[in-house]
Amino acid sequence: MDEPLKFLGLVGSLRKNSYNKALMKAALTLLPKNVTLEVFDISEFPQFNQDLEQTPPRLVTQFKAKIREADAILIASPAYNYSIPGVLKNAIDWASRPYGDNAFEDKPVAVMSASIGALGGGRGQYHLRQSFVFLDMHPLNRPEVMLPFAHNNVDAEGNLTNEQTKDLIKQLLEALAEWTLRLKNKAKPIEH
Amino acid sequence: MDEPLKFLGLVGSLRKNSYNKALMKAALTLLPKNVTLEVFDISEFPQFNQDLEQTPPRLVTQFKAKIREADAILIASPAYNYSIPGVLKNAIDWASRPYGDNAFEDKPVAVMSASIGALGGGRGQYHLRQSFVFLDMHPLNRPEVMLPFAHNNVDAEGNLTNEQTKDLIKQLLEALAEWTLRLKNKAKPIEH
Amino acid sequence: MDEPLKFLGLVGSLRKNSYNKALMKAALTLLPKNVTLEVFDISEFPQFNQDLEQTPPRLVTQFKAKIREADAILIASPAYNYSIPGVLKNAIDWASRPYGDNAFEDKPVAVMSASIGALGGGRGQYHLRQSFVFLDMHPLNRPEVMLPFAHNNVDAEGNLTNEQTKDLIKQLLEALAEWTLRLKNKAKPIEH
Amino acid sequence: MDEPLKFLGLVGSLRKNSYNKALMKAALTLLPKNVTLEVFDISEFPQFNQDLEQTPPRLVTQFKAKIREADAILIASPAYNYSIPGVLKNAIDWASRPYGDNAFEDKPVAVMSASIGALGGGRGQYHLRQSFVFLDMHPLNRPEVMLPFAHNNVDAEGNLTNEQTKDLIKQLLEALAEWTLRLKNKAKPIEH
Repeated sequence: MDEPLKFLGLVGSLRKNSYNKALMKAALTLLPKNVTLEVFDISEFPQFNQDLEQTPPRLVTQFKAKIREADAILIASPAYNYSIPGVLKNAIDWASRPYGDNAFEDKPVAVMSASIGALGGGRGQYHLRQSFVFLDMHPLNRPEVMLPFAHNNVDAEGNLTNEQTKDLIKQLLEALAEWTLRLKNKAKPIEH
Repeated sequence: MDEPLKFLGLVGSLRKNSYNKALMKAALTLLPKNVTLEVFDISEFPQFNQDLEQTPPRLVTQFKAKIREADAILIASPAYNYSIPGVLKNAIDWASRPYGDNAFEDKPVAVMSASIGALGGGRGQYHLRQSFVFLDMHPLNRPEVMLPFAHNNVDAEGNLTNEQTKDLIKQLLEALAEWTLRLKNKAKPIEH
Repeated sequence: MDEPLKFLGLVGSLRKNSYNKALMKAALTLLPKNVTLEVFDISEFPQFNQDLEQTPPRLVTQFKAKIREADAILIASPAYNYSIPGVLKNAIDWASRPYGDNAFEDKPVAVMSASIGALGGGRGQYHLRQSFVFLDMHPLNRPEVMLPFAHNNVDAEGNLTNEQTKDLIKQLLEALAEWTLRLKNKAKPIEH
Repeated sequence: MDEPLKFLGLVGSLRKNSYNKALMKAALTLLPKNVTLEVFDISEFPQFNQDLEQTPPRLVTQFKAKIREADAILIASPAYNYSIPGVLKNAIDWASRPYGDNAFEDKPVAVMSASIGALGGGRGQYHLRQSFVFLDMHPLNRPEVMLPFAHNNVDAEGNLTNEQTKDLIKQLLEALAEWTLRLKNKAKPIEH
């Protein structure tokens, strides 16, 4: 039997009843066969300072090891001010450094977002995608999961209640597993 | 022996001595073994009108067939007004329609750019990358080819004279070939 | 009595029953006092070619004159492939050239969008905003008008039926008029 | 005599010999007449957590007061991973909250960037500009200050040595002062 695929989850909001935590919790219940998902808590990172990148806090070292063990990354994050939350970006900045030791290198990745607005956090997703270019990550194209008016679709206990979004998350997880397997095929070097 | 990989080239500027034509001409001389590159002329497309998408001009039909035959797409384009040239975007819009008949679906793609400014057309590349999400294309991450101050690096006959950029284009072509081969591995459907 | 403010309208879709034409038609009925709105037809522009920019087609010359007479620009456009429609971008590219003769220089601008998708054309609006930087235009920040699921909000004659969106358009027109008047104040040069 | 214009400066990198600190230090020596510039240290902010936004740390309250006193904001920041540094974005996220109490509302703003790469941090500037839409800030269009290959243009003491960039910064400061004065003209409400 094949080794299970390991997904590592990151949530961009620290709020206790975060709508994006609700998306990630739903994902934990909707995994395809032979896929695991572990969520890494990014709430305790200090501010990134390049002077400290050669001697990073232990948490950063642990984070980078978890990323490297993972077959793919799954992000659930709001947009803050039409871009990536500073909290999430700061964790990404730590894990990408120092130069030449970027833990995200060559990882498949998918993004989900939720917000109380009409665009469901979508604006932040495209900024993340631009970061993925430098990080050399391979983002899934479809489906895109953007949950608008999240306050009407998550209950008081922080559980996603919207069935259509649950179905989309299920599709996204399947597509990320397929994308991850597809990318495991490393081609031979090309000659001139 | 393996079938050659077919790249289809698109140039975003119609100017006779276009710097981006110079990048594409250089690419034609720098191809890896067993890779072909054909450039499609986009200068004659009419303006896209959705009312005509079910009965497109013959040129559009030919364009879509060429895209479908290709293993990967190579774009050389300036940024106009910090975004994609209308000329190039119009051709892309035609080939992506009608809904459900997007010729670019699942194609690997790489982008090069040149401009007289300091950023070498880079701003337009990230807008193209956002279009690739909807088009379900798979852009190469590295190397990024952005030639600044192009007027100092292309001669009067429209030939690229900058050796460093030639080397980068060579690397990009190799990387696109590897990326294309890597993506030929279609994974089996994932079960729940 | 004050001179009326002149708005010039551009629509990014050529489709006869375009949802974005519906937004622009609604705007024509919702103008504040002492504001006029004229819509310029961009359907007949040839493809931009920099070799022709010094001797542009008459239509381009007329377009640039209309832009220069206007106090502000109002754009209604879908997103095509998550970016600016080629048709609209091509018209903008013509009017911005040749270098040093950009007709849009220093103009206030506002954008509306409609689409059948959930984001209402929003992704294209942010690409337009990046173009406005190079064009040296001054985009309105609020309100943002993005009409999702446009097929449910425009009738068979191409008229906008959604009252909430009409109200938003009314607010946008007022805000654009205020923004235009605010920017008429040209400050004195700053000394060192 | 007129009140001086107050600029508030923010630097997106915490590194001791940061190239972007060098840009800000240069700005302090290049101010137009009757303009002051105070730099606010963002290195000590905790991670933003929406659960704490109603009772923010004292530093956040001080930051928001300083922003409100300022006539315009000046940012010097690298791009990290082709987007806004988490450190800077986190400070912006704090100052924009809670909803309805965004300290940046209606402020003019200008951005400078430096990096060791060829684009001089430019990619991050356009992400900041998208945040400015939601923040309702008014970014300067020109000149754009992006210093590439910063390691060759800043000395061991963290001082900018590139005269052309100093001149650009001087122009940017003048343009920001003019833009700030121009926007002080608040138009009367528009009637229907």
